[in-house]
Amino acid sequence: MTDFYPSRHAAKPEMLPRRDPVFHGTHDASSPLSRAQSEKFERDGYIVLQNIFDADEVRLLQAEAKIIMANPAALDLYTIVTEPGSDEIRSVFRIHDQSPLMSRLVRDERLAGVARYLLDDDVYIHQSRLNYKPGFRGKEFYWHSDFETWHVEDGMPRMRALSMSILLEPNTANNGPLMVMPGSHLKYVTCVGETPDDHYLTSLKKQEYGVPDDAALRDLAEVNGIDAPLGKPGTVVIFDCNLMHGSNGNITPFPRSNAFIVYNAVSNKLQDPYGAKKPRPTFIASREVKPLHIVSGALTEPVL
Amino acid sequence: MTDFYPSRHAAKPEMLPRRDPVFHGTHDASSPLSRAQSEKFERDGYIVLQNIFDADEVRLLQAEAKIIMANPAALDLYTIVTEPGSDEIRSVFRIHDQSPLMSRLVRDERLAGVARYLLDDDVYIHQSRLNYKPGFRGKEFYWHSDFETWHVEDGMPRMRALSMSILLEPNTANNGPLMVMPGSHLKYVTCVGETPDDHYLTSLKKQEYGVPDDAALRDLAEVNGIDAPLGKPGTVVIFDCNLMHGSNGNITPFPRSNAFIVYNAVSNKLQDPYGAKKPRPTFIASREVKPLHIVSGALTEPVL
Repeated sequence: MTDFYPSRHAAKPEMLPRRDPVFHGTHDASSPLSRAQSEKFERDGYIVLQNIFDADEVRLLQAEAKIIMANPAALDLYTIVTEPGSDEIRSVFRIHDQSPLMSRLVRDERLAGVARYLLDDDVYIHQSRLNYKPGFRGKEFYWHSDFETWHVEDGMPRMRALSMSILLEPNTANNGPLMVMPGSHLKYVTCVGETPDDHYLTSLKKQEYGVPDDAALRDLAEVNGIDAPLGKPGTVVIFDCNLMHGSNGNITPFPRSNAFIVYNAVSNKLQDPYGAKKPRPTFIASREVKPLHIVSGALTEPVL
Repeated sequence: MTDFYPSRHAAKPEMLPRRDPVFHGTHDASSPLSRAQSEKFERDGYIVLQNIFDADEVRLLQAEAKIIMANPAALDLYTIVTEPGSDEIRSVFRIHDQSPLMSRLVRDERLAGVARYLLDDDVYIHQSRLNYKPGFRGKEFYWHSDFETWHVEDGMPRMRALSMSILLEPNTANNGPLMVMPGSHLKYVTCVGETPDDHYLTSLKKQEYGVPDDAALRDLAEVNGIDAPLGKPGTVVIFDCNLMHGSNGNITPFPRSNAFIVYNAVSNKLQDPYGAKKPRPTFIASREVKPLHIVSGALTEPVL
């Protein structure tokens, strides 16, 4: 199988062209996004949707996130990632399998329908997680393209996936919000260094391989600057799988929290990893390709 | 001598009232700030001055900062502070003694005249420094009140001092700008823990004593929120000695840099430290009280 996006092989980093569309479909009157939104996603690699959930739905999601975080014993232990050097929970993976409400959320037409439209294919969940960046001592996430890791470590062949972050706390300029480099998704920044075995055990806390070089980051940031999409709880940030993104630490007392969903096109199913001996565990990168059954209507308390 | 601001004595932190004015003078038609600016300084503990230097002056200051940073061998070695775990320069102290242009800057009427007005006294330089927060890997400065340290470790008796930060690179929301808690200067947050000997050797890199507790920071931030004064090079941020401030790290490629000047009222000269065995060295806290001779006119290349 041809490797269109080689990385972690060469001694020097390179900036390669993207070989896949960003917006895979075509816009028409029945599309779930406007033409301007579709074009912005294609050009900048991200869009922000405000007010797609009503206040009751947002409260429901926030309450569910608190319940999940407060009851680690109810979770599969291996799906929990803590802050470096502490027991504070940083992420819980595979939330769509561990919470009926989150299972309903990932199938929601307002999210999954948009993913299907942008990727022009049926979609499935490559990864889901709940992220929590605590106040006072929240650590940074350094710059990275998710696709580089998904390709090298998980075997995702092409750029036909996207992420959605559903904010559960206010994202302000000051509490370490997601930062993106608009337009960076059109280049593929290769990284140096071989991937160590079981890299995921440390990379989810602090990444040391699959890290882009300073010169590439400076080039990308100088072309189009850096955006930090902000918003109140319920805001949805949708971004392409190859968009360079990261976040500063957070010394403010105000934590950040979001539900994070990665949709992949069913035609883009995982192969053997392109730069690791064995694929990462399925709680980080699902290998089961089952087209999502998309559901419409308001989110409500699931009946158990 | 009565200690009006005890700290690092008790096992539990406290929030004490401020016992000194913020704006020590009175406003009239000849004042160097407007009434609104004076009132904002009193209420919020900080103000921002834009465009007080012209483009040539800003370029001159930026060039001088680069020269200082690029030639550490020309500096007194003990005035240089590096990033934790690296040789990258984080601060150079006592710049007004090591650079003719910086010596001229601290005497400038647009700065020193405003300090004299707000403190209603002749002023002298308690501390000066050049700060550089590198891109990509710039570390955070955790929340602190400067006065707490100046009182405990340097012996500054009362709150009658202020700081001016002259921005030398753009301060954006994303590159770890100064953050302040407006109104926090009206409370004195005591810190726990005895001050170790020669604390300054590590505290300038990463502070572990004189750190306010989470509950106090949450209270202060919830009352009035958090502001991040942004601006282009040449912008001047003036803030009270007891304002709670800090900054997040900086993963963007864009460094931050500023010249930092602390003016103290001559009537507020240093005593023995209130919570340390011996005072910090004079390059960090001058003990020589000499009223500044204030100079007007444009900054120009000093004739050597």
